Amino acid sequence: MYKFILAIPACLLAAYASASSYKIQHVEPLNWWVGMKRPSLQIMVHGEKIAELAPAVAYPGVRITGVERTDNPNYLFVNLDIGKDARPGELKLQFRRGKDVVASHPYRLEARRPQSAQRRSFDASDAIYLIMPDRFANGSTANDAAGMLEGAERAAPTKRHGGDLAGMQSQLDYIRGLGFTMIWPTPLLENNQPSYSYHGYSLTDYYKIDPRFGSNKDFRNYVAAANARGIGVIHDIVLNHIGTGHWWMQDLPARDWVNHGKTFLPTNNQHTVAQDIHVAPEEKARFFDGWFVDTMPDLNQRNRLVARYLIQNTLWWIEYANLSGIREDTYSYSDPAFLNEWNRAVVAEYPNMNIVGEEMDSRPYMVAYWQKGVINRDGFRSELPTVMDFPLTDTAPGALTAPESSGQGLIKIYEVLAADYLYADPMKLMVFPDNHDRPRILAQVDNNIDLMKTNVILMATTRGIPQMFYGTEVLIGSPKQRDDGVLRADMPGGWPGDKASAFTGTGLSQPQRDMQHFVRTLFNWRKTSSAVTHGKLTHYLPSDGSYVYFRHDGKQTVMVVLNKNAGETRLDLGRFAGMIKGARTAKNVLTGATVDLGAPLTLPAMTSVVLAW
Amino acid sequence: MYKFILAIPACLLAAYASASSYKIQHVEPLNWWVGMKRPSLQIMVHGEKIAELAPAVAYPGVRITGVERTDNPNYLFVNLDIGKDARPGELKLQFRRGKDVVASHPYRLEARRPQSAQRRSFDASDAIYLIMPDRFANGSTANDAAGMLEGAERAAPTKRHGGDLAGMQSQLDYIRGLGFTMIWPTPLLENNQPSYSYHGYSLTDYYKIDPRFGSNKDFRNYVAAANARGIGVIHDIVLNHIGTGHWWMQDLPARDWVNHGKTFLPTNNQHTVAQDIHVAPEEKARFFDGWFVDTMPDLNQRNRLVARYLIQNTLWWIEYANLSGIREDTYSYSDPAFLNEWNRAVVAEYPNMNIVGEEMDSRPYMVAYWQKGVINRDGFRSELPTVMDFPLTDTAPGALTAPESSGQGLIKIYEVLAADYLYADPMKLMVFPDNHDRPRILAQVDNNIDLMKTNVILMATTRGIPQMFYGTEVLIGSPKQRDDGVLRADMPGGWPGDKASAFTGTGLSQPQRDMQHFVRTLFNWRKTSSAVTHGKLTHYLPSDGSYVYFRHDGKQTVMVVLNKNAGETRLDLGRFAGMIKGARTAKNVLTGATVDLGAPLTLPAMTSVVLAW
Repeated sequence: MYKFILAIPACLLAAYASASSYKIQHVEPLNWWVGMKRPSLQIMVHGEKIAELAPAVAYPGVRITGVERTDNPNYLFVNLDIGKDARPGELKLQFRRGKDVVASHPYRLEARRPQSAQRRSFDASDAIYLIMPDRFANGSTANDAAGMLEGAERAAPTKRHGGDLAGMQSQLDYIRGLGFTMIWPTPLLENNQPSYSYHGYSLTDYYKIDPRFGSNKDFRNYVAAANARGIGVIHDIVLNHIGTGHWWMQDLPARDWVNHGKTFLPTNNQHTVAQDIHVAPEEKARFFDGWFVDTMPDLNQRNRLVARYLIQNTLWWIEYANLSGIREDTYSYSDPAFLNEWNRAVVAEYPNMNIVGEEMDSRPYMVAYWQKGVINRDGFRSELPTVMDFPLTDTAPGALTAPESSGQGLIKIYEVLAADYLYADPMKLMVFPDNHDRPRILAQVDNNIDLMKTNVILMATTRGIPQMFYGTEVLIGSPKQRDDGVLRADMPGGWPGDKASAFTGTGLSQPQRDMQHFVRTLFNWRKTSSAVTHGKLTHYLPSDGSYVYFRHDGKQTVMVVLNKNAGETRLDLGRFAGMIKGARTAKNVLTGATVDLGAPLTLPAMTSVVLAW
Repeated sequence: MYKFILAIPACLLAAYASASSYKIQHVEPLNWWVGMKRPSLQIMVHGEKIAELAPAVAYPGVRITGVERTDNPNYLFVNLDIGKDARPGELKLQFRRGKDVVASHPYRLEARRPQSAQRRSFDASDAIYLIMPDRFANGSTANDAAGMLEGAERAAPTKRHGGDLAGMQSQLDYIRGLGFTMIWPTPLLENNQPSYSYHGYSLTDYYKIDPRFGSNKDFRNYVAAANARGIGVIHDIVLNHIGTGHWWMQDLPARDWVNHGKTFLPTNNQHTVAQDIHVAPEEKARFFDGWFVDTMPDLNQRNRLVARYLIQNTLWWIEYANLSGIREDTYSYSDPAFLNEWNRAVVAEYPNMNIVGEEMDSRPYMVAYWQKGVINRDGFRSELPTVMDFPLTDTAPGALTAPESSGQGLIKIYEVLAADYLYADPMKLMVFPDNHDRPRILAQVDNNIDLMKTNVILMATTRGIPQMFYGTEVLIGSPKQRDDGVLRADMPGGWPGDKASAFTGTGLSQPQRDMQHFVRTLFNWRKTSSAVTHGKLTHYLPSDGSYVYFRHDGKQTVMVVLNKNAGETRLDLGRFAGMIKGARTAKNVLTGATVDLGAPLTLPAMTSVVLAW
């Protein structure tokens, strides 16, 4: 026996030694489903020298249509066709060297939920509650480190605080009670970075919930619990970049998998290069291919394998966790052609799926450029259904705090809305007083709670899909200058031992309770208002410190008066006769009072009103 | 005999008395031409009870196709068809009561100039010199009052100063010498208003040059003299409003001829109503139908007779005076459907005619909305070929004077140009350091002559059609806050007895002579530059106090460095290798020096450069 072995030629021996050591490190997507519209699936297989092998599958209805390799021999991309007749079950991915199976991996094909493709998504009839999971509620202190590089250190604003899915799940009834129908948590996927990992935008694993938040199953359970309460969950996806701690960075799937390889070269952050017909090619490349920051390598979505990977990952989370929507980060930084392909692929599988992209720019035309249906002069036609209304967010606080004068004050809000013709569908704008990238709205309006309420009324009643940042309802503030770690403050009551709790009301000040009541009243009413959730917007020029607009759908009319006046004001309603028509009385939806529309409207100082009839 | 007359029935006698008193007060257009593409012509006839009469014409090739009357019996609109076979000559417009001709008016049909329809107009190969005729040169003091309500009072900034066509004509060689190929005089038509008439935008007669400027023939001669020097003339037209002193206001051709009759109701000046998909109808009406100011009644162009009148008036001036272009005032205030009809009518007769409209707004999307070829989301498709680049005009001075910092300084200029994708044709933007509605550019850049030169270089070398306001070349200044009467200062040397003269150079300071030389060098060079007049624009992000862009057309490359640095700067050209390609040397077009492109470029303090090769 010993001799016999020695008789094997050296080359074969080497091959045998190699074969025996094939170890599969990653197979992604983690699983797939039968009955998807697109029958093809591309599986990334990662393992030392795996590219030397040939994959094989024996499973009814499933066949391998091709294999792709890169310049890194440790990756193999297996293209499968999952036929209509394929049934749920576990197939075995086999890897052969010659005729020998030298490695294998079980791979599950799951059944889809009934009507999975036809799920509804979010639209203007919804209101979205934005949570930063690390800062909302710490349901389990046991997972505060969870073996990751960075543990919890609650006193430090830029470090992790320990919030998790268990905490989020325990407060679903609270959010439902406030009147919200969708929750957008900032990214929950693993960010195993040595520092500044709490925000979640430096993904280190596309298929794994960060263990400090919980497990993949915990997330799936969270969504199910939300769904059971009539709440959908919007998944925050990052297509542009990963974190330096992503396992890919130890063994890049291809030399061009990330832009500029492993070397940090910053983006120029010049969003306009996407539109600019004069821009030098070098500037364009620098924007799209430069890294967002030094800890976020920039993915090269022009690599077809990268594109396919990202698309499948999005579909995987929708199907796995039963998601109701997608929010895509740093939208314009990614390759535009890829973004369109990604949108089309999502909508091809989920025709009603809404996707909102972040183009953080205060100019309406810059945001509108990215909305589906806009015919851009440079030839670009975006496929993104919903965009974030940063122009309104960034304009409203200054418009509310500035003294009224020619070209200043409320007219600035009016003019943002007057630019709505630039969009294909203004009802598909996400409108928000603030979010995790802005100073808290309370700070932006100089800590004036009345103006803050006016701002929230605007966002809740103008056209579009309102989104509110957690804690707004209990007056979480911040410095007026953006300070991320601070404005992403812990929700009171989310941590064991918190003296005050937004959730129970314990220890809240009277203004906090009042604001919470205001938010609860406004958003619960909003759900029932056909005019606000589906109707047209008609507005009048601001005058004498107030801005009046109507929402109306033929069934209901809603009249909103944003009012900045420091003293009591009498508003002559004659100017709005064209909208009020014959109506005689209306209900003040915030106070419940009946209002006479035949007389001037008395507005208390600094008080905005919402009337409905 | 006496008895016989007495025997005439009273009714007939009254008719006879009336007939004998028919007096024609106005017939407009004053004449017309044979060989126009559109054979139809509508003649407005004004005279007491003229509507009682029936017109008749006996002239070969000409026939009356219809007669239109309004609610004012003193107006008759005669629709003629001027057939292809009609020859030049004088026809007699007869007016009959029954079978009797009770009034008549001679009407000339002129021959057109050869190739009149095919005339060239202005484009990016031109440079436009803007003159306010009352303030440029007083060639004849004899016409300073000319029987009009307001005479000259030169010491008062808001009153007339006496400039005229004779003065303008005497300085055509001066303008040619500066390198300009087009002259845009602000309106020359009669403004017989009691006060504030010098600016010319309160027309009191659509068919008459203001006698304080000269006669219609003087204007025609002026254009001919300009043409003989290779200079075209752009006519400044006002379609939106008239002056309260217009003869129509004594006897409105129809009750709805002007909006709100004779009652002043101001426009809300809210330009966005044109685009706004949410605007209340009342606001929209208020914008379009409100008066610009109390001395400017707003024409109702939805009245078909008004529309036809205005269209024919424009055609009349083009043909009569041999114009090379049209500038239309307060563009967005007029009825949009009418504006399109007006543009189409002009281009139908003169296919190469360029028209520039004034939308005074700093937002690129607001200006782009009005450019032909832009597909607006609200369905509006404008027919206006050229728009005025107020966004660049309003942005550049602040960008030059502000310290460079994130989002401030030169990047603001870059970003205006980055929005060019909003336009159908950025080469059809009129670009200008300032005009008669802005503080003088010198004031806008804090009286810094170096920055002023940089601003002029920008406007002369970026894409589009440059326009310079008279007197910029001799450093006419103004307060930094807009003060119309003052910024529209008299051109030195334009008045008898002026101590200094821009035209002869006498008495100019060294900085004035230097600026004049700079303008002369720049614009004369510009005429010869194929890259600037026809080429593409490629720009790089501003960096370290300079903004670099290229104009290039395959034949010539022009490199422009706008430089704000207070000290001498060395600019590494390696960053621009993609545009410089193999070029080794370039010519500094302002100094004539040869520049080595293989070494860093040395920029003197606050000095911008234009290099060509």
